[in-house]
Amino acid sequence: MTKPLNIGLVGYGFMGRTHSNAYKRVNDFFEREYRPVLKAVCGRDAEKAEAFAAQWQYESVETDWQKLIARQDIDAIDICTPNNTHAEIAIAAAEAGKMVLCEKPLSMDPEEGERMVAAVEQAKVPNTVWYNYRRVPAVTLAKQLVQEGRLGRIFHYRSQFLQDWTIDADLPQGGAALWRLDVGAAGSGVTGDLLAHCIDTAIWLNGSIRDVTAMTETFVKERMHNLTGKVEKVGIDDACAFLCHFENGSLGLFESTRYARGHKALYTFEINGEHGSLRWDLHDLHRLEYFDHRDESIIRGWHDVHVTDGDMPYMDKWWVPGLQIGYEHTFVHQVADFLEDLAAGRATSPTFAEALETQKVCQAVLSSAETASWMSV
Amino acid sequence: MTKPLNIGLVGYGFMGRTHSNAYKRVNDFFEREYRPVLKAVCGRDAEKAEAFAAQWQYESVETDWQKLIARQDIDAIDICTPNNTHAEIAIAAAEAGKMVLCEKPLSMDPEEGERMVAAVEQAKVPNTVWYNYRRVPAVTLAKQLVQEGRLGRIFHYRSQFLQDWTIDADLPQGGAALWRLDVGAAGSGVTGDLLAHCIDTAIWLNGSIRDVTAMTETFVKERMHNLTGKVEKVGIDDACAFLCHFENGSLGLFESTRYARGHKALYTFEINGEHGSLRWDLHDLHRLEYFDHRDESIIRGWHDVHVTDGDMPYMDKWWVPGLQIGYEHTFVHQVADFLEDLAAGRATSPTFAEALETQKVCQAVLSSAETASWMSV
Amino acid sequence: MTKPLNIGLVGYGFMGRTHSNAYKRVNDFFEREYRPVLKAVCGRDAEKAEAFAAQWQYESVETDWQKLIARQDIDAIDICTPNNTHAEIAIAAAEAGKMVLCEKPLSMDPEEGERMVAAVEQAKVPNTVWYNYRRVPAVTLAKQLVQEGRLGRIFHYRSQFLQDWTIDADLPQGGAALWRLDVGAAGSGVTGDLLAHCIDTAIWLNGSIRDVTAMTETFVKERMHNLTGKVEKVGIDDACAFLCHFENGSLGLFESTRYARGHKALYTFEINGEHGSLRWDLHDLHRLEYFDHRDESIIRGWHDVHVTDGDMPYMDKWWVPGLQIGYEHTFVHQVADFLEDLAAGRATSPTFAEALETQKVCQAVLSSAETASWMSV
Amino acid sequence: MTKPLNIGLVGYGFMGRTHSNAYKRVNDFFEREYRPVLKAVCGRDAEKAEAFAAQWQYESVETDWQKLIARQDIDAIDICTPNNTHAEIAIAAAEAGKMVLCEKPLSMDPEEGERMVAAVEQAKVPNTVWYNYRRVPAVTLAKQLVQEGRLGRIFHYRSQFLQDWTIDADLPQGGAALWRLDVGAAGSGVTGDLLAHCIDTAIWLNGSIRDVTAMTETFVKERMHNLTGKVEKVGIDDACAFLCHFENGSLGLFESTRYARGHKALYTFEINGEHGSLRWDLHDLHRLEYFDHRDESIIRGWHDVHVTDGDMPYMDKWWVPGLQIGYEHTFVHQVADFLEDLAAGRATSPTFAEALETQKVCQAVLSSAETASWMSV
Repeated sequence: MTKPLNIGLVGYGFMGRTHSNAYKRVNDFFEREYRPVLKAVCGRDAEKAEAFAAQWQYESVETDWQKLIARQDIDAIDICTPNNTHAEIAIAAAEAGKMVLCEKPLSMDPEEGERMVAAVEQAKVPNTVWYNYRRVPAVTLAKQLVQEGRLGRIFHYRSQFLQDWTIDADLPQGGAALWRLDVGAAGSGVTGDLLAHCIDTAIWLNGSIRDVTAMTETFVKERMHNLTGKVEKVGIDDACAFLCHFENGSLGLFESTRYARGHKALYTFEINGEHGSLRWDLHDLHRLEYFDHRDESIIRGWHDVHVTDGDMPYMDKWWVPGLQIGYEHTFVHQVADFLEDLAAGRATSPTFAEALETQKVCQAVLSSAETASWMSV
Repeated sequence: MTKPLNIGLVGYGFMGRTHSNAYKRVNDFFEREYRPVLKAVCGRDAEKAEAFAAQWQYESVETDWQKLIARQDIDAIDICTPNNTHAEIAIAAAEAGKMVLCEKPLSMDPEEGERMVAAVEQAKVPNTVWYNYRRVPAVTLAKQLVQEGRLGRIFHYRSQFLQDWTIDADLPQGGAALWRLDVGAAGSGVTGDLLAHCIDTAIWLNGSIRDVTAMTETFVKERMHNLTGKVEKVGIDDACAFLCHFENGSLGLFESTRYARGHKALYTFEINGEHGSLRWDLHDLHRLEYFDHRDESIIRGWHDVHVTDGDMPYMDKWWVPGLQIGYEHTFVHQVADFLEDLAAGRATSPTFAEALETQKVCQAVLSSAETASWMSV
Repeated sequence: MTKPLNIGLVGYGFMGRTHSNAYKRVNDFFEREYRPVLKAVCGRDAEKAEAFAAQWQYESVETDWQKLIARQDIDAIDICTPNNTHAEIAIAAAEAGKMVLCEKPLSMDPEEGERMVAAVEQAKVPNTVWYNYRRVPAVTLAKQLVQEGRLGRIFHYRSQFLQDWTIDADLPQGGAALWRLDVGAAGSGVTGDLLAHCIDTAIWLNGSIRDVTAMTETFVKERMHNLTGKVEKVGIDDACAFLCHFENGSLGLFESTRYARGHKALYTFEINGEHGSLRWDLHDLHRLEYFDHRDESIIRGWHDVHVTDGDMPYMDKWWVPGLQIGYEHTFVHQVADFLEDLAAGRATSPTFAEALETQKVCQAVLSSAETASWMSV
Repeated sequence: MTKPLNIGLVGYGFMGRTHSNAYKRVNDFFEREYRPVLKAVCGRDAEKAEAFAAQWQYESVETDWQKLIARQDIDAIDICTPNNTHAEIAIAAAEAGKMVLCEKPLSMDPEEGERMVAAVEQAKVPNTVWYNYRRVPAVTLAKQLVQEGRLGRIFHYRSQFLQDWTIDADLPQGGAALWRLDVGAAGSGVTGDLLAHCIDTAIWLNGSIRDVTAMTETFVKERMHNLTGKVEKVGIDDACAFLCHFENGSLGLFESTRYARGHKALYTFEINGEHGSLRWDLHDLHRLEYFDHRDESIIRGWHDVHVTDGDMPYMDKWWVPGLQIGYEHTFVHQVADFLEDLAAGRATSPTFAEALETQKVCQAVLSSAETASWMSV
């Protein structure tokens, strides 16, 4: 028999759906001691929260997150609200002794993040941040190959996250699905939304970043604001790119934008080492390309690995070789790991403390762009 | 409030998992009048059936499919057992007034299939066969583009399904996961297992097949039989290829094998018409390649369409552009359509009657290979 | 100092250009004892022949191929005329003691081919047929890998040659650049033009073909004939596909058409063996894909080999890794090999005798399609 | 009848071969008033120069470039020597009234480049720099599409040139084929060798670059020097990356390295505009990928354009659709354009003056890396 893990979800937007799905599916595929129970969903709009609860079969609804946190029957608070609310909710949840699962990015800035880390560490509550792309099987396999030392000394790391959905100048900012365009709610534009993923994976695969030089751009300077009804200055960065040095001496190159026609969600990374290289992209997420210079010269070329076999990360739990899984499974994997770590008394990476490092790099990037100078992380 | 649709699943193997998953997930993503309820799973091995029920949260277990069919609280029988049991179970279920959802291929041969069709038609029970690949969004989009007449007169259709998992001569045949290698349980080898998918999609996209010339091969002639413990002659076809004429005058080329190193489950099709072409493969199932000769000549080339946008089939129900779904979603889509059709009083394609046509082509293919002559379907 | 090899070219069409280019370039890149000299070009239209001679710097022009053959200063006759003239010219050239280089296909039918082989063998003159695609570096590398036994026992061979340039029903047949559509000049349609390449490579890589079952189609039944000015029945095959058994027990699948929208000259082959597989296509001719099942499982995938390194066939003669060569170089390679073989007193593959085997397969294919039955080669 | 254009080539290394090949082939494919004549090759090593002359059929040999320039029978001086000799030779040639064709990069630094520009402009001699990649048909087609305004306002430009041939720490620097590793001969490492190509194409396609922030790295700090026989400090940059703003407001991202395992000569660019995008890479140089947001949504995707048709740049001169050309043809095209411009009295782009702009960007990049600050160009 499994033990229930009662989930209180805050926020019923896009991320609310991905997390709910993960909680509902995890035990069908992963044998775990704990089984998440969709105990309550919380949102300010009661009607929408009710509809969400009905669709996903949450047992109850709250409209005040403080009440949710106060409930005795809730074990874990999952934060899926806009970035500017993460800190307050997370800290309150930790103080109430709840486990906290927080959507990325951790916080609006490193200072907020520090307080969040302090709160969960002081409360000694399990905590994790949903940098879900680490748990694409092909990405986890990349981590394994790097860790085994197959690439040798690393020379280069490059990563990009390209989208094209905000090019239309008539798109408003703010509110509901568009809070990511509102600097007040999001803190930054592509830096916190997209580059944060690139940075999290980079640090995981290649270690810490030492210093950065960056540039940002806001192509559309003013947009109608949904909350005020007025045309207002756009405060977010539409595009951001930076160069960096990693602590291991390798060079980094990062870029992110919502103005790259033809790319829906092209998140890529590539790492080049002395002996070999790896590359991956989210548009074909089940594939990992691997190059090994030690292959015999006449048959040397990038291996196109279809990461769907049972000896590859997470894949023994799903179907058979050749049959792919998708985006949503990364969240299932994160829950599966969280449940396993919970039973084992281990932290689940990335913890708040780990996610704080990404926040610091984001901050250095934004500062560098603002000051037009290299910044240490 | 949704109405329950009580499911009685027969078989707890690979397909039992894909169907159970589909039933559990469909209402989270598709608004439907009916909601499948995992009422009972049936399997001869009580212990395994219990374990399966526990994992998937079936309410009860049966070890005799006839008892399952006799239960008043079961609305639909879903058949996930080896091919040689489909007819008997399906006919009994129909006669008991149950809806029947049957794994493909429909039957061991057209004669059996005719009796199954007669049974469901006489009983007037909703029925469908799980040719799931029709409901890959990219494949459904292909159907839409063909139906709109975008390709013009069709000249060519080619399809293949290549695997490489039975090359090892030490692999036994028969029993459990290996019943597909046992001609007694499977009826045929790759023809019924893999080519049947190719044929179903082909007929759906390009109409009926008129005649065929085929060849089959069994590369490993004898294998240990798991059920008898003896080395026995292998009765299935390891590989099968055929040429054909479609009723619309186009030429067809089909191939399937389990001896193609490097291909895990490479199911592909391509269709060439007067104005344009389409191609697709299961290893990157969210992509559809489209060629349109009417494009301006200097920018003419295959369009690489990442079928993940909200205006593409089924995709408004999932995530956002660029984020892919996978294999298992094809089953969710089939359930979603079945539930919608049920509410509307419509048949769900492919019905038993439609699947019988595929069975007839398979039979013609096997006969052609045996007689080394062209066969009409 | 190099020795001159005086070339007499018959025909100044597309193939006349590719051969002339090869003769002019070969010694710039390949050290050889012989140096081809463009001594004379022969064509019935004096004005066009003069223009061609001027462009390519031929020393002289003939309008009667018999005079060309009679010239004492000509060492080798190169036949670039339509298929229906190959036999007569080649036999006369051989009888005059000239070396003969003949465009593919060798002949209109095996009977003609037999006489051509007899002529060159009796005259003991060096002879070769321009199946140029064998000498794409990636294809030659494929041959090397197969010969080294890397693939193990072969199970499957498949090949296709897809074009789309004759779909327009208003395209006339016959004369000048369109003689390939005129059965009188070409003998057959895609079978002799395109499948002959597929078959030549297949035999080279995988050995002889035992028997075939084929179908052909002529989609546009009548076309204006350029030579008669009348709408006439089209005698060629627009499309041809066949299944076959190789002598080594593997299965073959071949297809060719000029009605596959989106494919300009997509010549592909793939070979699947016990241990590995190879595939190649002409649209990216410098790449060879190689799969080796003996690779470690977690990094197993198709190797994408960019065949441009100095240790790959012919590539030490050209540029540096990563820099590709193209179509025309296959002809340079054939001349380079011919010159080397000439100096060494060796035959240059494919000889007339080898090309005759391809002719026999073509004939079996056409007969099979006509009789709707399996034919032995 | 064509007019001779007498070429005096200085240098017989890799570039000497590519240029010689271009001169010899151009008139076979391009009708031009002028025909290059390989009058003389000049190199300090008489024996090697003789061998080169014999292979390429140069009429004569010089060992002193000043003598070559002094010859009355030479019309044009082509400079294929290491970078540190470009200025002296080019200025002398111009002063002697010779046309000058100079390998890239133009010079060691902008100051040298200014003097070279002044010399050719004062002498009013035709001049061009061999930035050959502009004349890959797919790249020229990209220029055409950009010029037609198809992409709309440009947001992003990114380019990289990745190689992996200097990773081995035992590779020496200096002399013969390795002068590119010797800062004294090359001036810089990948910046002048590889990034210069990226920058030239970028300026051509997207206009001038305003400012840059850059980083460089030398991974192997000391190497045996071939000329001194001693282990010496490596003065070149092994890797260089920079961010920039273009004058048109778009953002640029550039990277180049010789330490990217798996990439032989992966030169890529991508440009993203309001309506569409383009991308290309040298490893498959005959393909251009084009995205047009104005395509109907359900068939919207990158067009994979195989740039081999007669209506595409330069391709009417070569073979037929589907048959590719390669690296060396870019030089043929540059000669073809030079000859045509010469007859028409026009300058051939890039002129020395145009190439100077690239030199200035390279200088700004190196200065930025050295000072760790943004630099204006």
